[in-house]
Amino acid sequence: MGDKKKAIVYVRLKDGVLDPQGVTIHKALMQMGYKDFLSVRSGKFFELEINANGAEIDRQIDEVCSKLLSNPVIENFSVEKKG
Amino acid sequence: MGDKKKAIVYVRLKDGVLDPQGVTIHKALMQMGYKDFLSVRSGKFFELEINANGAEIDRQIDEVCSKLLSNPVIENFSVEKKG
Repeated sequence: MGDKKKAIVYVRLKDGVLDPQGVTIHKALMQMGYKDFLSVRSGKFFELEINANGAEIDRQIDEVCSKLLSNPVIENFSVEKKG
Repeated sequence: MGDKKKAIVYVRLKDGVLDPQGVTIHKALMQMGYKDFLSVRSGKFFELEINANGAEIDRQIDEVCSKLLSNPVIENFSVEKKG
């Protein structure tokens, strides 16, 4: 049994790509009277638990990010490794 | 015109709450042959741009998190402030 480590993948829309969810949340904030919130941009993240002894784990994470976890046409991703 | 600052709100499902999106992604990874990925847990985040001169901004952010950005029954949130 191998050690585990964790990676967090953050996926966000590229600059210039419209974010309807963020816009909707911002409108709701305005309607609720929260005038000090100037903009909202939404994103998602994935916490991956990984076998630390796996081969070429970093390359695998990168592959998985662009093939499955993000849409490279409209989204960027970044990876934060832990432990 | 006030200064702007940024806060990032991370929303994740509480421990023990089923995460169908994470489970589905993990199954897909297994089918694609990525055997070193042990589990996947999904979450979302929101980048808030805020008027730094607003009154009681920290309290407002906390309110907004529990009222609008998360469902306190099944989700936890954490806030990271920047700038």
